Amino acid sequence: MTTIKVLAFDVFGTVVDWHGSVAREVAAMGLDVDANAFALAWREGYVPAMQRVMSGELGWTRLDDLHRLILDQVLDRFRVSGLTEEQKWELNRVWHRLDPWPDSVEGLRRLKERYLICTLSNGNLGLLTNMSKHAGLPWDCILSAEVFRKYKPAPETYLGVADVFGVAPADVMLVAAHQDDLDAARGCGLQTAYIERPREFGPTQDKDVSPQPTNTLHARDLVALAAQLGC
Amino acid sequence: MTTIKVLAFDVFGTVVDWHGSVAREVAAMGLDVDANAFALAWREGYVPAMQRVMSGELGWTRLDDLHRLILDQVLDRFRVSGLTEEQKWELNRVWHRLDPWPDSVEGLRRLKERYLICTLSNGNLGLLTNMSKHAGLPWDCILSAEVFRKYKPAPETYLGVADVFGVAPADVMLVAAHQDDLDAARGCGLQTAYIERPREFGPTQDKDVSPQPTNTLHARDLVALAAQLGC
Repeated sequence: MTTIKVLAFDVFGTVVDWHGSVAREVAAMGLDVDANAFALAWREGYVPAMQRVMSGELGWTRLDDLHRLILDQVLDRFRVSGLTEEQKWELNRVWHRLDPWPDSVEGLRRLKERYLICTLSNGNLGLLTNMSKHAGLPWDCILSAEVFRKYKPAPETYLGVADVFGVAPADVMLVAAHQDDLDAARGCGLQTAYIERPREFGPTQDKDVSPQPTNTLHARDLVALAAQLGC
Repeated sequence: MTTIKVLAFDVFGTVVDWHGSVAREVAAMGLDVDANAFALAWREGYVPAMQRVMSGELGWTRLDDLHRLILDQVLDRFRVSGLTEEQKWELNRVWHRLDPWPDSVEGLRRLKERYLICTLSNGNLGLLTNMSKHAGLPWDCILSAEVFRKYKPAPETYLGVADVFGVAPADVMLVAAHQDDLDAARGCGLQTAYIERPREFGPTQDKDVSPQPTNTLHARDLVALAAQLGC
């Protein structure tokens, strides 16, 4: 492990609990749907929607707008009708109000004492800013696919973090709960830390959180990561 | 004054004391120059350097690199020789270590309770992030000319803030110690707050800080602005 100067964090699932937050809000709205399944279906549309942008089928489109395209499909699929445009807009904003995992704020505060901590998320800047205010996430800087006009796992995003801060790729560590994100970062020369988050997909879906030797670090959560990094 | 949702801050001179910080560091290096004049000369190169980018003479160039181009000219002009490349690089980084005005951190903390607070600076993202960590500036989001690939006073920068946060231009207030910056923002439909900073250019240069009726608000400093905005 060489010197780390910047910790760049994946956000959805790694820092915030998207599944629980979306499911709770859907349940609280009183929609006649399985809130767990609804949250999973919304998130399942995420990768295909970004691929439409990365393939060039869609021009640059913020995640807020992709979330809305998917929401309209999911509402159809779950046969939810009767929501006003304002209610749909408000529901789509649930991604701005995701709750942190219980360890996230403490872990980030400790890591921030020693490292520059930033997001590297496919969420757009406005979404990430509102979420951070809501959840109390103390980022030094919010970086997003929106800054680089490419979605992860495009190399421009990982290399972009190093470039923005004027450091070598090996001085940056990506922190994420997803092996594919970490694999892409490693391919660009970044260090990687895997965070487990076994309940990322809710109570009904298991997730393989076994350590992969390819990662620089493996931690149960962000407080454990801080301890491993001496913070 | 309509509803304000976002406060976007000019940074150099408005939030941090570039003149005092640069002059102190130049003096501490023991260079045989008038530190006050040196700081002023460095900053005088700022607008012409950005104009070379905006005219297309230079491709997109970060402020860090423009600062270095100007520094080399200023070192020549002040007949400073014998600095190593590493010393020049380190001196150029002084812009990452600018100190806040005495009221800035408290003012921002109060304003942040009620508003989304972000930078809108010609400084690059890395510079602004390092400076904010150094000075303890609690931004919700760091926005920069680097995000929009245009330097202020290009309209894309002011309108870009509204676009990033999904609000109307009139929901954004630019906070700055410079009337030309505020004039350009107002021309894009933003609200404006002027901050006096009479010593921005050091002890030898007077600055006209008289109120202009075109601005939405006029405040002595950021704590006074917080009070005016009920924070």
